[in-house]
Amino acid sequence: MSRRTADHESPLHTDRSHVKRGPNRADYDRDRVDQILDASLFCTVAQSIEGQPFATPTCHWRDGDYLYWHGHAKARNLAPGQPVCINVTQFDGLVLARSAFHHSVNYRSVTLFGQAEAVTDPDEKARQLERFVDKIAPGRWPQLRPMNGPELKGTGVSRIRITEASCKVRAEGVNDDAEDVDWPVWAGVVPLQRQWGTPEQEREQPVGLTPPDPVELW
Amino acid sequence: MSRRTADHESPLHTDRSHVKRGPNRADYDRDRVDQILDASLFCTVAQSIEGQPFATPTCHWRDGDYLYWHGHAKARNLAPGQPVCINVTQFDGLVLARSAFHHSVNYRSVTLFGQAEAVTDPDEKARQLERFVDKIAPGRWPQLRPMNGPELKGTGVSRIRITEASCKVRAEGVNDDAEDVDWPVWAGVVPLQRQWGTPEQEREQPVGLTPPDPVELW
Repeated sequence: MSRRTADHESPLHTDRSHVKRGPNRADYDRDRVDQILDASLFCTVAQSIEGQPFATPTCHWRDGDYLYWHGHAKARNLAPGQPVCINVTQFDGLVLARSAFHHSVNYRSVTLFGQAEAVTDPDEKARQLERFVDKIAPGRWPQLRPMNGPELKGTGVSRIRITEASCKVRAEGVNDDAEDVDWPVWAGVVPLQRQWGTPEQEREQPVGLTPPDPVELW
Repeated sequence: MSRRTADHESPLHTDRSHVKRGPNRADYDRDRVDQILDASLFCTVAQSIEGQPFATPTCHWRDGDYLYWHGHAKARNLAPGQPVCINVTQFDGLVLARSAFHHSVNYRSVTLFGQAEAVTDPDEKARQLERFVDKIAPGRWPQLRPMNGPELKGTGVSRIRITEASCKVRAEGVNDDAEDVDWPVWAGVVPLQRQWGTPEQEREQPVGLTPPDPVELW
């Protein structure tokens, strides 16, 4: 990752996307935002309906300047025309300090603001769903039984333009108060590791069919 | 996990917490809700400020009928007196079907609705922060340099009562259309595995200090 971008240098930085708490961990660098989005499969879409907030988890993918998510064609969180706030967070480890106050976690997080827009053109919707499958299992789409009309119609795809966003990252060791460093308790970082387990094949399958190569994406 | 609770049997089921999409995967069973909350460290708090939704990740813990989260004493997402929606999702694996449409993920998810309430009593706040540390590293709290007044004052704790909630779980294999089961592409589940890596000790420490026993919590 490159140096921290000064807030005023990035068009992603607005009053709404400004990170007030822990501003030293915040950035508004588009490359960093894209890196975190692309390395993650899950986001949480927040929306407000008559003042009632809703938080819905879903999968996302990116195409250039847009972040896409999908759902049942009638799913609430497609939110066409509504303001949304989307958060993506990857948890990377526990930070165990010598005081409770300095306990923390390492993480990479992106928060996006924008207005959701439905993808209605069937060809573009199919193209985006291909990009989605390609993110999870590159090269798998042409091997699949082709998508049919009712399936395409039954799947909703929304997007927001990435114009207003922040990322917040903690990727470091313990930050204890200077007077606490000799306090007699173990201190350090416990990293979280993730990997794909052994693929569990569904029923007997013809010889020669193999699971897709794993992608580092979760 | 026990049998699925019928919607009408649970007081957690309301118009607001009712799961419309994939209702066959939804449940309103309090024990299941608690299991998923207690097995997870992270939640996303959604709130609405003048119609603008915000989604903020944070850590949570539970004490009986209440879910707690914390933040900077002035953090927006403490949301005292505001309606919030809190989602907790654990991603358990990729489901690779023979058609794009039936691709899915295995997951465990809980969504809670309620009004956030600030924990203002210092003793109760300290007690809850002890519970929080105890969730991550049982037995660690008394070993730590004790929390001081300014630290306690600078830490905000909020809670909601668990009265309105749903859980949604997918924990199964591929559900292809019957006519697709011989389509020549590998199909199955790729489980996601998580574990703690080797603890990274912060600087030289006295002999005999050891990292806490790992808890299955992420």
